[in-house]
Amino acid sequence: MHDWITEVVFDAHGLIPAIAQDAATGQILMVAWMNRDALLETAATGRAAYWSRSRKRLWRKGEESGHVQKVSELRLDCDGDVILLKIEQVGGIACHTGRASCFYRRLDGDASEASWTTVDPVLKDPELIYK
Amino acid sequence: MHDWITEVVFDAHGLIPAIAQDAATGQILMVAWMNRDALLETAATGRAAYWSRSRKRLWRKGEESGHVQKVSELRLDCDGDVILLKIEQVGGIACHTGRASCFYRRLDGDASEASWTTVDPVLKDPELIYK
Repeated sequence: MHDWITEVVFDAHGLIPAIAQDAATGQILMVAWMNRDALLETAATGRAAYWSRSRKRLWRKGEESGHVQKVSELRLDCDGDVILLKIEQVGGIACHTGRASCFYRRLDGDASEASWTTVDPVLKDPELIYK
Repeated sequence: MHDWITEVVFDAHGLIPAIAQDAATGQILMVAWMNRDALLETAATGRAAYWSRSRKRLWRKGEESGHVQKVSELRLDCDGDVILLKIEQVGGIACHTGRASCFYRRLDGDASEASWTTVDPVLKDPELIYK
């Protein structure tokens, strides 16, 4: 049972980074952390669950916002220490800022004079998402 | 100068995870770590440089293999603690196993009986890559 989890390399805190990628478009939506329980639950239910480092508890993505992630594929990298989730993002919003993706800032300009530019729009006011 | 780097949140070890994504196809190729110097060099040169945790030194991707990564875009996530690189992978091989991507293992089967299946081919023998 669950032999596959023995091939997953958790860090000193018992965590592994997990990348959520839109299965249809390839857009990278977010990176969060999983512990063993979160990964087992994700594999069993097909809904992404993470470990919230700030709240120190299992975080079923969408539990407050309704923005559940339906997992179509789980992948593991060569070193076994990063998980990739291919998902369908219900509601089209993965980020707590109300954007599709957490990666909405782009480095623009030459290196020494560069700055992070916000290039993706807020799709829904977070105050309306987290009531 | 370099004000942008003050918005990047490095961890207790001075590192940040960096995802390399094929700019043309959206395929996720690898995840590695950067320290401040690696990120500054990447931004300045347009070639991906990482911090090798195993070798404890700056690692210019492709320095041995020739499989350089040309960076077209750098992104930062909402928490400032993950970097996304959109790249062109010279040679088409990012993984040290000789595969296009490090994420070549897929979880197949029901959760309790599942296993990691290698689903992507070796494109070039690693012994020929790392002479």
